[in-house]
Amino acid sequence: MTNVHSISSPSILNEDRAHEADHPTSPVATFGMDQPLRLDCGIDLAPFQIAYQTYGELNADRSNAILICHALTLDQHVANLHPLTGKAGWWEIMVGPGRPLDTDRYFIICSNVIGGCMGSTGPASTDPATGKAWGLDFPVITIPDMVRAQAMLLDRLGIETLFCVIGGSMGGMQVLQWTAAYPERVFSALPVACSTRHSAQNIAFHELGRQAVMADPDWHHGRYFERSTHPHRGLAVARMAGHITYLSDAALHRKFGRRMQDRELPTFSFDADFQVESYLRYQGSSFVERFDANSYLYLTRAMDYFDIAADHSGVLAQAFLGIKTRFCVVSFTSDWLFPTSESRALVHALNASSARVSFAEIETDRGHDAFLLDVPEFFDISRAFLESAGKARGLSNGAGG
Amino acid sequence: MTNVHSISSPSILNEDRAHEADHPTSPVATFGMDQPLRLDCGIDLAPFQIAYQTYGELNADRSNAILICHALTLDQHVANLHPLTGKAGWWEIMVGPGRPLDTDRYFIICSNVIGGCMGSTGPASTDPATGKAWGLDFPVITIPDMVRAQAMLLDRLGIETLFCVIGGSMGGMQVLQWTAAYPERVFSALPVACSTRHSAQNIAFHELGRQAVMADPDWHHGRYFERSTHPHRGLAVARMAGHITYLSDAALHRKFGRRMQDRELPTFSFDADFQVESYLRYQGSSFVERFDANSYLYLTRAMDYFDIAADHSGVLAQAFLGIKTRFCVVSFTSDWLFPTSESRALVHALNASSARVSFAEIETDRGHDAFLLDVPEFFDISRAFLESAGKARGLSNGAGG
Repeated sequence: MTNVHSISSPSILNEDRAHEADHPTSPVATFGMDQPLRLDCGIDLAPFQIAYQTYGELNADRSNAILICHALTLDQHVANLHPLTGKAGWWEIMVGPGRPLDTDRYFIICSNVIGGCMGSTGPASTDPATGKAWGLDFPVITIPDMVRAQAMLLDRLGIETLFCVIGGSMGGMQVLQWTAAYPERVFSALPVACSTRHSAQNIAFHELGRQAVMADPDWHHGRYFERSTHPHRGLAVARMAGHITYLSDAALHRKFGRRMQDRELPTFSFDADFQVESYLRYQGSSFVERFDANSYLYLTRAMDYFDIAADHSGVLAQAFLGIKTRFCVVSFTSDWLFPTSESRALVHALNASSARVSFAEIETDRGHDAFLLDVPEFFDISRAFLESAGKARGLSNGAGG
Repeated sequence: MTNVHSISSPSILNEDRAHEADHPTSPVATFGMDQPLRLDCGIDLAPFQIAYQTYGELNADRSNAILICHALTLDQHVANLHPLTGKAGWWEIMVGPGRPLDTDRYFIICSNVIGGCMGSTGPASTDPATGKAWGLDFPVITIPDMVRAQAMLLDRLGIETLFCVIGGSMGGMQVLQWTAAYPERVFSALPVACSTRHSAQNIAFHELGRQAVMADPDWHHGRYFERSTHPHRGLAVARMAGHITYLSDAALHRKFGRRMQDRELPTFSFDADFQVESYLRYQGSSFVERFDANSYLYLTRAMDYFDIAADHSGVLAQAFLGIKTRFCVVSFTSDWLFPTSESRALVHALNASSARVSFAEIETDRGHDAFLLDVPEFFDISRAFLESAGKARGLSNGAGG
């Protein structure tokens, strides 16, 4: 267990609302020079802050907290209107009264990752040494760094043990890192559509995205803030690349096929003749309105570096030896970014560590993004797993139990 | 059969060498104002020229000609040193004395596609109306346009019937178009790693590449020639995207895995820590030295538009009704750009048209690029197919047969 810097009651939630000026809807936990975040790169980051959202009520014995870890381009706005886009929270389908992550029963926390751009300290934040945005002077962070920062937030919120940690994609990596780094703080874990290490193909796609950003002259080696520019074009291209990997060939075929946009015959031009082109252009251009280009570089890098086994003499099972956490590993058959075979390898390692693990490989053609979509089998499995873990944890049906 | 504008002997090869100043190692066939290329977009392109290479000797009854159709980023330099890169021809492994495309037996032709940038007329060529490079004023071309230009070249070379048309990827599309448009001119056909139409996912990857090029301020809406610039950075990103799709996840894992470049520990920076990053950067930067960015736009567009069935009331089998051409369809199990299921659909359509077709699905983890690599099973199948077709065609073992 890490040092607990300050145990305080959930009333900190109200104190932290004082920081809402930065990001109006999120409380922010600030950590001063005396509470640095120890980064894998060897640097102590201080001061720093973590923006977060909570839903539901923490029960009396603080045993019903669920931490949601968000994916690469998402944030803490799980189940409320997004302050920038005005759109619904990214996991409203999962989180709310009566939903699988039932806010009538659980206390749900989601924090913006360190390195992110929605209120937590990241490359767009001010470097106290210069008074300017960090840009590329921000230290390169890792998935373990993200999790270490979350642990400090939980310390601040007075939550010693999480009832569950759940997340998909980069969020799933954080879930796995939680169980490897803080096994005694995690009662149950639900890693979804993820892997214990980033594959060569995934590193390749991320490098493509980074090169697209860095090729944009408006990037200015990461110092675009000082020039009042933003590498919109490069970041949009990176987002397009990412987006293709989040869907499956079958899903793209079903959604768009070769259908034309508002016409029957090709224009014989470079306009967006095909619906899929128009869709991708929209995905690219809308993304750049809400995401910081440098954050994109940092978070993709963190995913690339992720390799739990490498931190345990190359033996994955070593990472989970003697662990008591209950696992439910979920993958989707058409996910080619984190193929189901990688979840299978994780399950084998967990079995080799004698961990309690169930595994659900869900049949769907919706690709990696399935964890964000209306996939009833996924909801049912999540609900049942939490139900069963809740019984083992002694959680009653009410939040006060 | 199309009109044969001029039947001349292969001695044209020597006449055409007069044009070698443009591209030193390739003969060029020029077509004047009286011999326009009718394009699918409705424009007659004239004048235009086609650069090509030949290997081996045309036999007395002109029955041993094989046309190789090249893929997106390749060219006519199949089996000789490339004039720009100095590297070996891209299919030397297939083409030469004693090789599957045996230059002791067959007369091999490969021409740079219309819209290309290695000597055939394309967007980098001079628009006679302005005296400047065409740029985006060049008409958008299609796979059928490429094939129509090749047919005019064959007319010029005095070759009425091809013994075989062979090609992979975009080259395979041209093979299929040859059989659909000029069935009586094609004795046998070997379409490899291709499809009768471009999928939504493939269109998406191409659109990503085009957006990367067009996002580069050095592109100048395609008029970079006039500014002495070239959108190197955007084109390199496009190439990186393409390159990822040419390999399989397994091939990338085998070749690179998560191995670091010249080091054991991460640098915690955005340097190319991983070998796969360094490899992709190299692929991107070397490509831009030899390829024109506008050509990349035009050729990807041609592939996106390709849909044989759409030109035949939506029924693929209609395209091949009554065809006498012998087909050998080849696909590779790990090719996710042109999955083997698409070759299977083609074979079904050919069967429904009562065409003669054999189908080889080759087990390999090398992805789409397998058709360019040392895959002995592919060589054996190609050799056996040509052997058998040669017997049916009455070809003897010698070139003069």
